[in-house]
Amino acid sequence: MNNQISVIAFDADDTLWVNEPYFREAEEQFAALLEDFLPRHSIVAALYQTEIVNLSLYGYGIKGFMLSMIETTLKITEGKVDPVIIQKAIDLGQEMLNKPVELLEGVEEVLKALHGKFRLVVATKGDLLDQQRKLTKSGLDHYFHHIEIMSDKQENDYQKLIKHLDCKPEEFLMLGNSLKSDILPVLAIGGSAVHIPFHTTWIHERIDHTIEHPNFYQMESLSEVLLKLIA
Amino acid sequence: MNNQISVIAFDADDTLWVNEPYFREAEEQFAALLEDFLPRHSIVAALYQTEIVNLSLYGYGIKGFMLSMIETTLKITEGKVDPVIIQKAIDLGQEMLNKPVELLEGVEEVLKALHGKFRLVVATKGDLLDQQRKLTKSGLDHYFHHIEIMSDKQENDYQKLIKHLDCKPEEFLMLGNSLKSDILPVLAIGGSAVHIPFHTTWIHERIDHTIEHPNFYQMESLSEVLLKLIA
Repeated sequence: MNNQISVIAFDADDTLWVNEPYFREAEEQFAALLEDFLPRHSIVAALYQTEIVNLSLYGYGIKGFMLSMIETTLKITEGKVDPVIIQKAIDLGQEMLNKPVELLEGVEEVLKALHGKFRLVVATKGDLLDQQRKLTKSGLDHYFHHIEIMSDKQENDYQKLIKHLDCKPEEFLMLGNSLKSDILPVLAIGGSAVHIPFHTTWIHERIDHTIEHPNFYQMESLSEVLLKLIA
Repeated sequence: MNNQISVIAFDADDTLWVNEPYFREAEEQFAALLEDFLPRHSIVAALYQTEIVNLSLYGYGIKGFMLSMIETTLKITEGKVDPVIIQKAIDLGQEMLNKPVELLEGVEEVLKALHGKFRLVVATKGDLLDQQRKLTKSGLDHYFHHIEIMSDKQENDYQKLIKHLDCKPEEFLMLGNSLKSDILPVLAIGGSAVHIPFHTTWIHERIDHTIEHPNFYQMESLSEVLLKLIA
């Protein structure tokens, strides 16, 4: 790997800790609430449709997900909703916000080993307060030089981050589970990127082609990153 | 004023642009939707109560306000809600998110005059995406060296900001309309602060005592700040 790397940025959700499975679970529970009206898979599809329409207005995160569940309920029930269902959608979202943080395997050892040798940062999308709360709950915050909570992860968002960190693209390495958000835009601006897949990925984050690029690395786990970087 | 000031931080909502009146208008429209159930002032009071309970979970901003309107509707109607009212609460919030940005008087001249002489930053609470969108809509973003969207504005949040900006407290001046969020915590950590009141202030941001402090300045408008700083 490029030996100029001095800054390592970690995606948070599904790279440092479990996130997407909680959304999938909530979707399933939400669909179960409404199955008198439509088959479950159609409810999940309608919710996704609403989320995508609302994405530019609400951004990423649980509060927008809650609002989209409520809006989808109104649409599916065509004005005949039992208010208990709306309350349950709110409860589902509040439970997500209150969940404990479950670290992925090897995260703490990897951060400990890299700390002091590289500038470590978090670069994550989502609700500001929710991501800060998860970082505090994770107990990992002391490893990081900087936390960047981004409203989106496109090329210009990474360009701003790199400028802000006062480093060159060739010194910047991003690690994450989303090819679309963590890998492609970073490679496009001249950085390096490691893809560590997670078993569950939101449809919106999926891409359907393979990546070939000299600064791109496909790995199975965070521990593998360690071997490449400080072997 | 202290001549060591090198960084000027501006609160955004109701300091650079109109914000709180939009919440008051939405509250009034929301209360009107439910007046078959309770007098309007009781609905506004119930909404405030719900917002305060949810504040630590949702943080500041319009999405949390929308969720609190919906929850308040369910409480007040005790399970007999017309779904149209829930839809209207969602519409009210979406209209707020889509509102144009209305700059307060003198803002652009003041930023133009201070730009290049001081490091100008924005230090604001609220939803990440919503505040970034307002800043883009405002056309003011090129005046600012840094934008800090904060989940809260307590002493330790300002301490982090100052550390991040790599300046000393005595070099830091905060301008804002909230004594509680923009003034008191900044004075407490050794910075200077200018209070520029706005005609509408959320109950949660009010304090009921006067402030006397050598680094505290009470002013009527942003233009007055200019006279003190570059006279």
